[in-house]
Amino acid sequence: MRIALGIEYDGTDFLGWQRLTHGSTVQGALEQALSKVAAQPVEVTCAGRTDAGVHGRCQVVHFDAPVEREMRGWLLGATSNLPHSVAVLWAQPVAEDFHARFSARSRRYRYTVLNRQVRAALDARYVTWERLPLDAARMHAAAQALVGEHDFSAFRATSCQAAHPRRCVLAAGVRREGEQVIVEIEANAFLHHMVRNIVGSLLPVGRGEQPVEWVAELLAGRNREVAGPTAPSSGLTFLGPRYEAHWGLPAEVSQ
Amino acid sequence: MRIALGIEYDGTDFLGWQRLTHGSTVQGALEQALSKVAAQPVEVTCAGRTDAGVHGRCQVVHFDAPVEREMRGWLLGATSNLPHSVAVLWAQPVAEDFHARFSARSRRYRYTVLNRQVRAALDARYVTWERLPLDAARMHAAAQALVGEHDFSAFRATSCQAAHPRRCVLAAGVRREGEQVIVEIEANAFLHHMVRNIVGSLLPVGRGEQPVEWVAELLAGRNREVAGPTAPSSGLTFLGPRYEAHWGLPAEVSQ
Repeated sequence: MRIALGIEYDGTDFLGWQRLTHGSTVQGALEQALSKVAAQPVEVTCAGRTDAGVHGRCQVVHFDAPVEREMRGWLLGATSNLPHSVAVLWAQPVAEDFHARFSARSRRYRYTVLNRQVRAALDARYVTWERLPLDAARMHAAAQALVGEHDFSAFRATSCQAAHPRRCVLAAGVRREGEQVIVEIEANAFLHHMVRNIVGSLLPVGRGEQPVEWVAELLAGRNREVAGPTAPSSGLTFLGPRYEAHWGLPAEVSQ
Repeated sequence: MRIALGIEYDGTDFLGWQRLTHGSTVQGALEQALSKVAAQPVEVTCAGRTDAGVHGRCQVVHFDAPVEREMRGWLLGATSNLPHSVAVLWAQPVAEDFHARFSARSRRYRYTVLNRQVRAALDARYVTWERLPLDAARMHAAAQALVGEHDFSAFRATSCQAAHPRRCVLAAGVRREGEQVIVEIEANAFLHHMVRNIVGSLLPVGRGEQPVEWVAELLAGRNREVAGPTAPSSGLTFLGPRYEAHWGLPAEVSQ
């Protein structure tokens, strides 16, 4: 039986999602916990791998259960065997042809910037600090150039292993909530470091150091070397993927 | 010169506010940082001491500067000498008769309950988990009995050193925001564990185990032994004190 899980995690103390032979990863912790419930090895496939320090609000994974357990058993059994920074939000059976990665129609990321004179103390794990005043409306205007299907080479890490640099951004928004400036981007898929590199180029626009059109120019130029730096991982949260409604998954990951 | 500071802190890794000879406290860390800026010992007085694990959104302290420094020097110098979990939000000169504790007209606390099937992974430092569904409207109705001047012995820790148990609650509200149920209470002052003990008695009302009138009955009975248990520290944040406008302090701590 194929089972899908929703996973929440605080990425601060992990080396990222993907299992490593040495070092603590979210996938490693989850597979270890599920293997205890199954009393035999379990491997999971996720909707989108995240880097070291990046958080997950509702990562989705699937696995093929090697033994029969109630959904409640997978949910509570796995969570009780996970470190405090990882929790299983829900577990449900899915069709055999559901695939956490290939069935996902889009992914959503949020990047949170604490924009004030002094660095964070509360919430320091979940934000990146920018001391200079940011104009969120300018950043929002600049981000609209990203919407649509484009070659995102300007915002692609050199380490990126994707087959090609074309991605389709469905929505990009920047808004202020008190001391926070929040960037949210939804795309069919993302290149490696794409969100953090986009944020690194939106910040100079927000500070008034670059014109609003700069982001469109960077995108058109397809040159990573002239775009802004990669923003820190702590501000980034993978909100989760979205699947077509017919898979019957919870509303937060359904279209 | 007397100086007031606004202080933000994540209380998770501290033994509380008050300086101890052994162990890490927020007051200890702050005084050490200010003493480095002054190059001589500095002692601070706070608006409201918090217990181990309790957070501060805008604690206020005052101290008498033993040397002359620009406000910017106190702010940035102290913050750069503080651990990552503490930051100075603002620094400003105040009248010689300003007193962080005695001048405060009220204090505000927030208690955040994560109300869902599974424990927290993200934000685990800032919430307390309740698995059973809570009716925030019932809790809000119950909390209204607390408003006004009352003998709060029912919600007072045995360790409380206050001279008397009478306090004046100015406002008490409970609301739901998604998966969170948020309790906010403003009072002239609080007894030891008062907010956590009140929350511990609001939870059975929210779960439907006690009638809405129960909180009023507990209050009238003045018997700590029959009220609910003390809610965990992690969900509690001291939002800060409020002072009369004539002191000229930032809006977040002014009436």
